[in-house]
Amino acid sequence: MMLINGHPHDSVSALDRGLSYGDGLFETVRFVADKAPLWARHMQRMLAGCERLRIPAPDPRQLWQEALQVSGDFEQSVVRITLTRGVGERGYAPPAMARTTRIVAAFAMPAISSALYSDGIRMHRCQTMLADQPLLAGIKHLNRLEQVLARAEWSDSSIGEGMVCDQHGNAICATAANLFAVIDGVPVTPAVDRCGVAGVARAAVLEALGDCRVRDLPLCDCLRASELFLSSSIRGILPVQAVGDTVYAPGPVTRAMQQRWRNLGFPTEQA
Amino acid sequence: MMLINGHPHDSVSALDRGLSYGDGLFETVRFVADKAPLWARHMQRMLAGCERLRIPAPDPRQLWQEALQVSGDFEQSVVRITLTRGVGERGYAPPAMARTTRIVAAFAMPAISSALYSDGIRMHRCQTMLADQPLLAGIKHLNRLEQVLARAEWSDSSIGEGMVCDQHGNAICATAANLFAVIDGVPVTPAVDRCGVAGVARAAVLEALGDCRVRDLPLCDCLRASELFLSSSIRGILPVQAVGDTVYAPGPVTRAMQQRWRNLGFPTEQA
Repeated sequence: MMLINGHPHDSVSALDRGLSYGDGLFETVRFVADKAPLWARHMQRMLAGCERLRIPAPDPRQLWQEALQVSGDFEQSVVRITLTRGVGERGYAPPAMARTTRIVAAFAMPAISSALYSDGIRMHRCQTMLADQPLLAGIKHLNRLEQVLARAEWSDSSIGEGMVCDQHGNAICATAANLFAVIDGVPVTPAVDRCGVAGVARAAVLEALGDCRVRDLPLCDCLRASELFLSSSIRGILPVQAVGDTVYAPGPVTRAMQQRWRNLGFPTEQA
Repeated sequence: MMLINGHPHDSVSALDRGLSYGDGLFETVRFVADKAPLWARHMQRMLAGCERLRIPAPDPRQLWQEALQVSGDFEQSVVRITLTRGVGERGYAPPAMARTTRIVAAFAMPAISSALYSDGIRMHRCQTMLADQPLLAGIKHLNRLEQVLARAEWSDSSIGEGMVCDQHGNAICATAANLFAVIDGVPVTPAVDRCGVAGVARAAVLEALGDCRVRDLPLCDCLRASELFLSSSIRGILPVQAVGDTVYAPGPVTRAMQQRWRNLGFPTEQA
């Protein structure tokens, strides 16, 4: 089910700036029945994105009601919230008074093999490198061609994600998840102030870890990590089993974060 | 008037990847009655974009028929052609068999003051810098937040464009036009292989000039140019009168290109 500006509908104007220029933001929120444990973090990021792009902020209570309404048919669901700057004249100039378009759509939670949680996920090393753009880094905007290109690099279904670097050789993220490494006993996650997305699951892990370093993470450091795991608001905590030919085993930090994830109220991650 | 996949319609699925990820391309084509002098160049760029993004290529003859159909009500028009990877499952992975969405829409040609052609356009110096992304440079894709941010930097209606640089201090383009300078008697235009769009009007000017250098153009070089002008498939050849506080006068190369533009069949550029 889908609501557009609060009304059941499944299409948007072909002149919407979200389509014309990717001028908008989105969130994908995991619901377990009528609970969304990371909701507050999703709203925080969306509002930060609105401020950055100067898009009028939505009312989080209204979004919550709409998300509940669309997800009601599912036991577990993914709710995608898309907010665009709305219909505009032709041309890049944002309208002085934008009337945003709000799309709230629910999808069945995808089935994820429990082996991915116990044994880990295999990653492709992506050739696609993320550009440095501090103006857009961190927020979850609609300009996602880099992720599309990175994800298009493999079709082998035994590979679950891709390791994406910036143009300086730093590991940044997976195509649709954030990255954590344990190096010399210390947890590390890449900074996302020049590229990448500041994931809401990443924020939850950072809070849980307490002592995690947020810094540039050269891929070579990553490849000698004792543990590597991914965080995703939809898929949770995924141990990394391999990046290309480099092999890892799930370790204690990864297992602790999986436990923490279950404690948040996400049921399926049976590591 | 607007056609979507050949049918009169004005909306697209809210699950279109053009909206979800900016996963597509566009062209804005100027029509003078039923002629579009730069049509072949627009098609060449769109097909190059399809190849780069691995989006199934459209049939240019079909696009031509649709463009004629929508522009028929106007004496002069701008036809925007948008091609997306179509409706997709949630997630970045491109569908194995994409069914593209094709939007062909006509707009009245905007009125442009003849003073802009005789005296030139004033430009703002944008703070927004373009990121280096060779995978996306040159093609006219739908990820245009950088242009939206750059264009949002000014609202003074006496300023017609913004000078946009890359992160190394090179002038690249205006927010919606390409840039030419005459420096020490030699015409120069910025390379667009790391960022920027390879404009179709730029291609026409390059062909007309014959001896234009395509290279990195540091903004400081640009500011000591004897002539500066913009090229746009919609607005044609616009002399630059000022970039911030730096003033220019339209010179002989600019005037020759304006004459060339009229010879292509564009009537309004009365310099």
